[in-house]
Amino acid sequence: MSRVTATYEIESPVGVARAAEVLAGEQSTGTFVRLAAETDALRERSAARIEALEIAGVSDRPALPCRLKGERFERGTVTISWPVGTFGTSLQTLMATVAGNLFELAELSACRLTGLTLPEEFARAHPGPHFGAAGTRAKMGGHEGPLIGTIVKPSVGLSPEETGALAASLAEAGIDFIKDDELQSDGPDCPLTERVAAVMAVLNRHADRTGKRIVYAFNISGEVDEMRRRLDLLSAHGATCAMVCLNAVGLSGLRDVRNHSPHLIHGHRAGWGLFSRSPHIGVAFPVMQKFWRLAGADHLHVNGLASKFTEPDASVAASALAVQASVAEGGPAHPAMPVFSSGQTIWQVGPTRALLGNDDLIFCAGGGILSHPGGAGAGVRALRQAAEAARDGVTLEDAAARHPELAAAMKAFPPVAFG
Amino acid sequence: MSRVTATYEIESPVGVARAAEVLAGEQSTGTFVRLAAETDALRERSAARIEALEIAGVSDRPALPCRLKGERFERGTVTISWPVGTFGTSLQTLMATVAGNLFELAELSACRLTGLTLPEEFARAHPGPHFGAAGTRAKMGGHEGPLIGTIVKPSVGLSPEETGALAASLAEAGIDFIKDDELQSDGPDCPLTERVAAVMAVLNRHADRTGKRIVYAFNISGEVDEMRRRLDLLSAHGATCAMVCLNAVGLSGLRDVRNHSPHLIHGHRAGWGLFSRSPHIGVAFPVMQKFWRLAGADHLHVNGLASKFTEPDASVAASALAVQASVAEGGPAHPAMPVFSSGQTIWQVGPTRALLGNDDLIFCAGGGILSHPGGAGAGVRALRQAAEAARDGVTLEDAAARHPELAAAMKAFPPVAFG
Repeated sequence: MSRVTATYEIESPVGVARAAEVLAGEQSTGTFVRLAAETDALRERSAARIEALEIAGVSDRPALPCRLKGERFERGTVTISWPVGTFGTSLQTLMATVAGNLFELAELSACRLTGLTLPEEFARAHPGPHFGAAGTRAKMGGHEGPLIGTIVKPSVGLSPEETGALAASLAEAGIDFIKDDELQSDGPDCPLTERVAAVMAVLNRHADRTGKRIVYAFNISGEVDEMRRRLDLLSAHGATCAMVCLNAVGLSGLRDVRNHSPHLIHGHRAGWGLFSRSPHIGVAFPVMQKFWRLAGADHLHVNGLASKFTEPDASVAASALAVQASVAEGGPAHPAMPVFSSGQTIWQVGPTRALLGNDDLIFCAGGGILSHPGGAGAGVRALRQAAEAARDGVTLEDAAARHPELAAAMKAFPPVAFG
Repeated sequence: MSRVTATYEIESPVGVARAAEVLAGEQSTGTFVRLAAETDALRERSAARIEALEIAGVSDRPALPCRLKGERFERGTVTISWPVGTFGTSLQTLMATVAGNLFELAELSACRLTGLTLPEEFARAHPGPHFGAAGTRAKMGGHEGPLIGTIVKPSVGLSPEETGALAASLAEAGIDFIKDDELQSDGPDCPLTERVAAVMAVLNRHADRTGKRIVYAFNISGEVDEMRRRLDLLSAHGATCAMVCLNAVGLSGLRDVRNHSPHLIHGHRAGWGLFSRSPHIGVAFPVMQKFWRLAGADHLHVNGLASKFTEPDASVAASALAVQASVAEGGPAHPAMPVFSSGQTIWQVGPTRALLGNDDLIFCAGGGILSHPGGAGAGVRALRQAAEAARDGVTLEDAAARHPELAAAMKAFPPVAFG
């Protein structure tokens, strides 16, 4: 039978080998008292199995507070596998299995889920992203290069009409993609119905005039029935993209949107720091994004290189590459588009392109567009010039010699520190 | 306008006061470049406000890896408030606001959300638990005292027929409550349809014979449409309780179950360690359970005192009390029933009862029932004897003098260490 494999970096007061047994037991057939019903045949069929185990070192104190006391906390990596007979291809039960109670075990003084390998059945059982990069370009009426995007700012406080006016000036500036802030969904001060109407009136006129259909990701996050109604609202106004806050609506909410949405699904990972910030507890993004892609997200946020957030660039890079890689060991690859944002300017465009080796990405900038000395239009053009230079293997300096907007951006925005 | 208030324990390389400003800005009107559109009127209407700030100390190294370098990492508590104009009473947008991007800020080297105060509107806008403790007792045909419960073990690997046979022996033993393991939902090896049929045939017969309707929490966690169908399946078989893995289905999934369920909703928090295990990043359970209760959970897991997990007893106690306390500052209180489990025996019954001061709880034991030398029936009776002793202010020793099952349990199960 096919098996799912997960890798954990752990630390334990009882040693890595014993901790791996406890983890495998807790997350499959075991209990703290061996029961009569736990027969050998049942274990053979249903138990999790320790596939690999590597000791990395030892510490004299626990990384996390731990009920079990000890003088020696061994660190290492363990790989555990499960037969799919218990959970089939259910994402929810898979989640409860590979990222469930185990994080609370007293035998673990640290535990990060760092890898997840899924058999082909998962890629076949789930719809995956409906559109991905190619579908996103098609929704725009055709588009080359990365999407240059921005986020409505101030994040909250604008009325629907003010949001529409902002969209108009961004459209004028040549933007490809605009998104609501994750803090703005359907509150009394900026109701979604009015916001969609105001924004789409502007963007539809722009499309009629230019042939270019700018993608606006409306934050529809809410209850299931609300989100279904909001998807219809988007359809009624010719919108093309629904944004959902993944951690706030959850896997079942995301998948329900996928089932009912004719639109691009823009996945926002607000709250992701809870899963990623500590080196001692959490889930790596390359693991979590598999759930979100299988459930249907077309776009997934990965922070940006040299961002205002604390995530190191190596982690951002691994996340972005994971989003474009195959989701399982066979079956449809289900790639999604990585979305880069947070403190992004022309300086991050080249390294971002170099990282992926393709243009199937969304590059969001706020101040990096609006604070351009030549205005927002020059800001967008400078980013596009930087992207074309990266695609063509031309240095920023050489490109700037031909493009005054890019040259101005290089003067206006201080170089960033990668790392 | 009403405001929501959240309290964070933070550490920062830029000082607590400056970090509080960044946090309030990031989570409301701010951006890293002050924009023209961010007018004073807009800020007055929509900005988050720092309500209180307390410095607790300073460290010479960051608690969590942090992009911003520093030599002085100040720790403290900050209280921030938001006007409800932006999010109204949306749980999803509230979540993205109080537990969103802020966890990733480079200005924070630690951040835990420890408190949340909601205005009355939230308690009025959301349905809350449909049944709570009183409704749970009513579903059973009337029941006094805490519910003595257990979890199907082995967690996975039993067939539907074997699960039915186990339910029969537990019913015979006098159990009040049985739950599926969170790892077992509707996998190919134990399909829910067959499991519900096998278990309810047993429990319905038991109810016909004894008048007592044992609560079995079937794990229905899955996609939205699947969960709706599973609720109907439960209805068709006379089941009374649906279990959902809260972190796996998410807030929108939970609320959808509440909207369509005539059954008790048993909220399982598998994966909770991600939110709670680190002292430096996370969300306190008394905060998170407000979301889950507003979305409709009747029962909420809180671990147990002196459990096999690593959570300290003081934290378990705070969680359990929170579940029974008012959810907001006015409006319906929406109390839920705390569920205690994990390594529980007769030794934890009294302290658990003393903690709450009432019997509106579910006390789950596995080995604590099945490993009783007199068998499962004696195991259940011993727990009930301990609960009655606690209610009546009688010591375990005095009660054991009259109750041989309790006396045997006190000999069989080693006393546990609280703390």
